[in-house]
Amino acid sequence: MKQFLDLEDIPNINTIISDAISLKKEPFSFEYLGKNKTIGLLFFNSSLRTRMSTQKAAQNLGMNTMIMNLNADVWGLEFEDGTVMNAGTAEHIKEAAAVISQYVDIIALRAFPSLTDKEKDLEETVIKSFQKYASVPVVNMESATAHPLQALADAVTIAEFQQKKKPKVVLSWAPHPRALPHAVPNSFAKMMQLIEVDFVITHPEGYELNPEITKNTPIIYNQDEALKDADFVYVKNWSSFKNYGQIDCTDQNWMMTLEKLGNAKFMHCLPVRRNVVVTDEVLNSSQSIVIEQANNRTWSAQVVLKHILENL
Amino acid sequence: MKQFLDLEDIPNINTIISDAISLKKEPFSFEYLGKNKTIGLLFFNSSLRTRMSTQKAAQNLGMNTMIMNLNADVWGLEFEDGTVMNAGTAEHIKEAAAVISQYVDIIALRAFPSLTDKEKDLEETVIKSFQKYASVPVVNMESATAHPLQALADAVTIAEFQQKKKPKVVLSWAPHPRALPHAVPNSFAKMMQLIEVDFVITHPEGYELNPEITKNTPIIYNQDEALKDADFVYVKNWSSFKNYGQIDCTDQNWMMTLEKLGNAKFMHCLPVRRNVVVTDEVLNSSQSIVIEQANNRTWSAQVVLKHILENL
Amino acid sequence: MKQFLDLEDIPNINTIISDAISLKKEPFSFEYLGKNKTIGLLFFNSSLRTRMSTQKAAQNLGMNTMIMNLNADVWGLEFEDGTVMNAGTAEHIKEAAAVISQYVDIIALRAFPSLTDKEKDLEETVIKSFQKYASVPVVNMESATAHPLQALADAVTIAEFQQKKKPKVVLSWAPHPRALPHAVPNSFAKMMQLIEVDFVITHPEGYELNPEITKNTPIIYNQDEALKDADFVYVKNWSSFKNYGQIDCTDQNWMMTLEKLGNAKFMHCLPVRRNVVVTDEVLNSSQSIVIEQANNRTWSAQVVLKHILENL
Repeated sequence: MKQFLDLEDIPNINTIISDAISLKKEPFSFEYLGKNKTIGLLFFNSSLRTRMSTQKAAQNLGMNTMIMNLNADVWGLEFEDGTVMNAGTAEHIKEAAAVISQYVDIIALRAFPSLTDKEKDLEETVIKSFQKYASVPVVNMESATAHPLQALADAVTIAEFQQKKKPKVVLSWAPHPRALPHAVPNSFAKMMQLIEVDFVITHPEGYELNPEITKNTPIIYNQDEALKDADFVYVKNWSSFKNYGQIDCTDQNWMMTLEKLGNAKFMHCLPVRRNVVVTDEVLNSSQSIVIEQANNRTWSAQVVLKHILENL
Repeated sequence: MKQFLDLEDIPNINTIISDAISLKKEPFSFEYLGKNKTIGLLFFNSSLRTRMSTQKAAQNLGMNTMIMNLNADVWGLEFEDGTVMNAGTAEHIKEAAAVISQYVDIIALRAFPSLTDKEKDLEETVIKSFQKYASVPVVNMESATAHPLQALADAVTIAEFQQKKKPKVVLSWAPHPRALPHAVPNSFAKMMQLIEVDFVITHPEGYELNPEITKNTPIIYNQDEALKDADFVYVKNWSSFKNYGQIDCTDQNWMMTLEKLGNAKFMHCLPVRRNVVVTDEVLNSSQSIVIEQANNRTWSAQVVLKHILENL
Repeated sequence: MKQFLDLEDIPNINTIISDAISLKKEPFSFEYLGKNKTIGLLFFNSSLRTRMSTQKAAQNLGMNTMIMNLNADVWGLEFEDGTVMNAGTAEHIKEAAAVISQYVDIIALRAFPSLTDKEKDLEETVIKSFQKYASVPVVNMESATAHPLQALADAVTIAEFQQKKKPKVVLSWAPHPRALPHAVPNSFAKMMQLIEVDFVITHPEGYELNPEITKNTPIIYNQDEALKDADFVYVKNWSSFKNYGQIDCTDQNWMMTLEKLGNAKFMHCLPVRRNVVVTDEVLNSSQSIVIEQANNRTWSAQVVLKHILENL
């Protein structure tokens, strides 16, 4: 792997899933790979799981880590070409990416969408600019429209818990008090099209994700019907894609309950708002595999970094 | 040791003090213990000494360190059971503690009291919830009512400087412009009941600490009388426990001076406000052992982490 | 080297430049030097290049690093003697520096000037107080009036790119929307007096730097005349020294262009505001060596730390 901007960068999805499971068993077996190598973790947005799991993954591989919180207020980056930079931005991405590339061997980056400027978010300006001007591999730790490290952890979790060759997986929208990005459901939907599952999406009418991502995945507006015989139910809120970034539905009937879940395993990327997105009852039950799923963030990051280190 | 929430977790106080003094002489002698082990340092409040000394202690033991500043604004944690989380808090401690436990081998935590809700502070909700839901050992880097790493450093410092078998130790209240927590004086008072000293407390009337902590320690309201023939004087401000979190006294006569100190050694946990809590003259004199005391924070943290690592 | 407060601490400038170039070729050749040694990087101001390059340099030498962001709001330090500390400052530099010295083997410090109190800035209160009260070597990562690590990286860059024995180097002022410190031009001007170059400064009348630093360096107010036959042009904004901290000129004619640059190499410490300080055309041309210059920040820091470690 030469970079990890999105799931397309994975050469073979089944190999990488089984590699991740191997690393989980022997976390330090490739410690020599990262010796005298440094990863820079750059956060334009706050992070708990992603930050800790990626740092852990890098340290398991013997790498040094350097963490920078690049709050937009502190360090205004310019992404446009030809700007007269006499206002808020102090440094152009051309210099920033080229300079940072000299201090680290891999750049990992988190930069959320605006949720106001649809076109710009879809262009993935921040991570694509880093990739364009960096001279080292770039890893996506959640960008405007994608969270591939999460989706890889999700696939590993399904592989570990699946009881049949082709399980039924449902992505089920849930209400939330704040407008959330599409990165997690986008990457999950893409991943489900790459592995051997029976995948459907359920959400209120009008909450369709980007059709270029969901492609011909069945969308069923009736949640009960969609959930029927599910093996894994992935619950997640997202804001409207059509009315970009808006909260068009707050209907609590979309909250996941134990009754709706049936015998399925419950998945969520966390953090999760209890009794809004899902009931306490579900999270406290043995059907919830969210903690194991969060654990797999380490192995998902580690397998990606391992493959990149092998190609440095 | 399986955890370090408070001084009760220390199996043998004299052994741990002498172990700390040994580590001070040979800081790297147990470097192998922490190999491929990670400590997560989680700060809900800012920290200088605690952060640097605990990080140093962990690194001396060969551990990797991950530091998270969990400012309440950034990462609202929910501690109540059964809440409908549709307001400020984004993640429940049940998930947070369980998830972090998978990325680290030890969780160290700093979380100050509210100083407004006495009952909640006394319940030690934050650190007790972490302990309840974490699957790895939890270390107290100062909680609502206790600062046991500081008290252990204090005991090590007294052991190093004492000239007689049973020295007289005085905890003397001092004025301060801000309302401060009870954690430091609480833990110091508990520690003084565990080692062989003649211990008295002096403070203005009405400034009694929690009597469940001071127990039958003599309280002398006359500072001069309390300080008589003292070998060690530990000066510290705290806000009222009775009128919880209030500043009821600002009497500068309680400030420590060289005259009052007599021949005693001067101790303080730092940071200290000069010429408010204590005069320049005292701090600049050879009777002040505050710098050595701060140095012992490293060995206090290191001996605790060593004992926990040995039991992992 | 026992410390690195300013360029005067370098015993032999040509030796250190060639040492830096050697380290660049073999970054890990002195990895053993920093084993079980810790550097504390203390930032009173934000930092990208300095933070990453100094952390990298320390890690290349095998050191542990501890980073503290000491934002003035969070941690008010008192620098005056004899103050009654009943207001904003919570800790005196006497305690802070002495305590930190016990947790680290080297203290590296960044503290910008006020740009309002000229006398205080010229006294270099922050870094000089740390040096006075610390018991370990102090390294300047940019102080009120000096940025010697930058100047050393600049000298290394000139050594790498120079085509003749005594190249002509021009320091050329440029406009900027914000009032900037004098640290970078000061240290560059001092460095140019230490190496074998033909050095001139050009800026609008009234923008003279501190004459105690520029000494007998020729100052030419006509930019075209100054730039004639230049081999290296170092472009940099600074605020007025005479009208201390003021922006007296915003004349865009001082912006560097490819036409003005002639055949010279273009240097800048970064971050740089495109089309305000210098045109896109210059930065995008092969005459710009700003990325290589930023790369040399690592080797400049590493050679300084190496010399200090050898004297610990």
